[in-house]
Amino acid sequence: MTSPDPQAVHTYLAALQQQICSALEDVDGEARFIEDPAEYPNRGVSWPRILEGGRHIEKAAVNFTHARGDRLPPAATARKPELAGRGFEAVSMSLIVHPRNPYAPTTHANLRFFVAAGGPEQKPIWWFGGGFDLTPYYGFDEDCVHWHQQAHDSVAPFGAQMYARFKDACDAYFFLPHRNEPRGVGGLFFEDFNALGFTRTFEMVQSVGDHFLPAYLPILGRRIETPYGARERDFQLYRRGRYVEFNLVYDRGTKYGLQSGRRIEAVLASMPPMVRWQYDHTPPPDSAEAALMTRYLTPRDWLSGG
Amino acid sequence: MTSPDPQAVHTYLAALQQQICSALEDVDGEARFIEDPAEYPNRGVSWPRILEGGRHIEKAAVNFTHARGDRLPPAATARKPELAGRGFEAVSMSLIVHPRNPYAPTTHANLRFFVAAGGPEQKPIWWFGGGFDLTPYYGFDEDCVHWHQQAHDSVAPFGAQMYARFKDACDAYFFLPHRNEPRGVGGLFFEDFNALGFTRTFEMVQSVGDHFLPAYLPILGRRIETPYGARERDFQLYRRGRYVEFNLVYDRGTKYGLQSGRRIEAVLASMPPMVRWQYDHTPPPDSAEAALMTRYLTPRDWLSGG
Repeated sequence: MTSPDPQAVHTYLAALQQQICSALEDVDGEARFIEDPAEYPNRGVSWPRILEGGRHIEKAAVNFTHARGDRLPPAATARKPELAGRGFEAVSMSLIVHPRNPYAPTTHANLRFFVAAGGPEQKPIWWFGGGFDLTPYYGFDEDCVHWHQQAHDSVAPFGAQMYARFKDACDAYFFLPHRNEPRGVGGLFFEDFNALGFTRTFEMVQSVGDHFLPAYLPILGRRIETPYGARERDFQLYRRGRYVEFNLVYDRGTKYGLQSGRRIEAVLASMPPMVRWQYDHTPPPDSAEAALMTRYLTPRDWLSGG
Repeated sequence: MTSPDPQAVHTYLAALQQQICSALEDVDGEARFIEDPAEYPNRGVSWPRILEGGRHIEKAAVNFTHARGDRLPPAATARKPELAGRGFEAVSMSLIVHPRNPYAPTTHANLRFFVAAGGPEQKPIWWFGGGFDLTPYYGFDEDCVHWHQQAHDSVAPFGAQMYARFKDACDAYFFLPHRNEPRGVGGLFFEDFNALGFTRTFEMVQSVGDHFLPAYLPILGRRIETPYGARERDFQLYRRGRYVEFNLVYDRGTKYGLQSGRRIEAVLASMPPMVRWQYDHTPPPDSAEAALMTRYLTPRDWLSGG
């Protein structure tokens, strides 16, 4: 049995961050990511990269962090109080992409690894978490099918039930109770996952990471040149409000970031570049905007014909 | 000693809602409030009024609610668990105004009354809460002094320490810990207040309500015609993000509304019409935008020369 290896996870996720940033710059063709690295002696590194105001990508944030410490703070271990006070490492890559074109969906992905020292005569405690999900403003069946096919293929080699389990977890997590709405069309979500042992679980996480660009780039590529006007832009900005509501009210990573005293700009780098709210917005019946709710923001099995 | 009288509070706050809406329509000169009333049998009424897309007022929401019930839900009484299960009435008027001109400040006001039936051989339990506060994007000393003078004058007849006490509470409440920033330049804030007996406390609440328009309208009037360009508009939209962050992360009324299953559109009617986020926004030194932080978003005694 292989020991959990945070440095191997670091190497993979840092390379993935680089690969994703390069690919997004290629898609945009104009804007470049800025870097805003910070190093905390004995506590780790934070490497946010931000692209704003691009031709096709209105905002993207791709963060890498590797935190370590001698003693886990109690706030970090609410669900596992027995870990408080132990040494730990946490490695994470997370991203969000807000395209400019309303026909191109927003996406979010996150992969993270946590390991805490074992107690006396105990092995280390570790797990992976993460996944990727898609939030369209205008729905296209072919995009949803492609997205979920890639999600499926990324985890299928690791267990027959993995996709269904992680898809259901994604639908459950990215949900706004106060709106009774899913945030998007889902994808994969897993937490506290170590069921396959370190080596095989890390292979699965790498497979998920490696499938992100093949899942997102074809969708982005076929939507970013679609002509649109004020109607579509208004709807996109309105729907982005749901993203803000989810991130500030429910998202565990954001809540933890707000409470932890981490760099607030890195924590809130996921916020959309421009957003609007409107009282009681109701799209015309049978419009594409209405179909977003009725056809797309409804959990659905996209791989068996919807 | 006069018994608490929710119907008298209803009459006053409903009239105040009408008066404020009329005054704001007069200022705008074009847009009108829509009404979206709802009545819940045996549970009360909700009368939101919303103005959107005005010439001077980009969005205003002025809500009146009168809720009643036979048994207080436990969630409503977290701070007073002994009240769970009792009959209650809650009357509230709350408003937010987002002017279009970046030189005109956003304002928020709220007045609310709560009464629960007493236990065996107990009198009813009641209190008032509320206040008003101001959130400029560009600071002007004369606006802050006028605002705080009106705040002071509204409560000064009711006790020498009232203004200082309610001003400090306002600064403490409208604060974003994750930014280490006040939301605005403050005003008045009080909670669970019944120290003067019902009659005199209600008089104080009416005085606060009656001072809102004299506090806000002169400021609004002298700022809404100020010429501005993309720089000021960008800064206003950026700063409105702080309003969203406060309301969704910290504001007790919003949090309660999100959890309560109340009409979500009325709960979130306070959200700004248009907002933007930008990574690590830093205004030029010595600019008016920098002065917002250094001079205005710093608790200050405006009535003794700042």
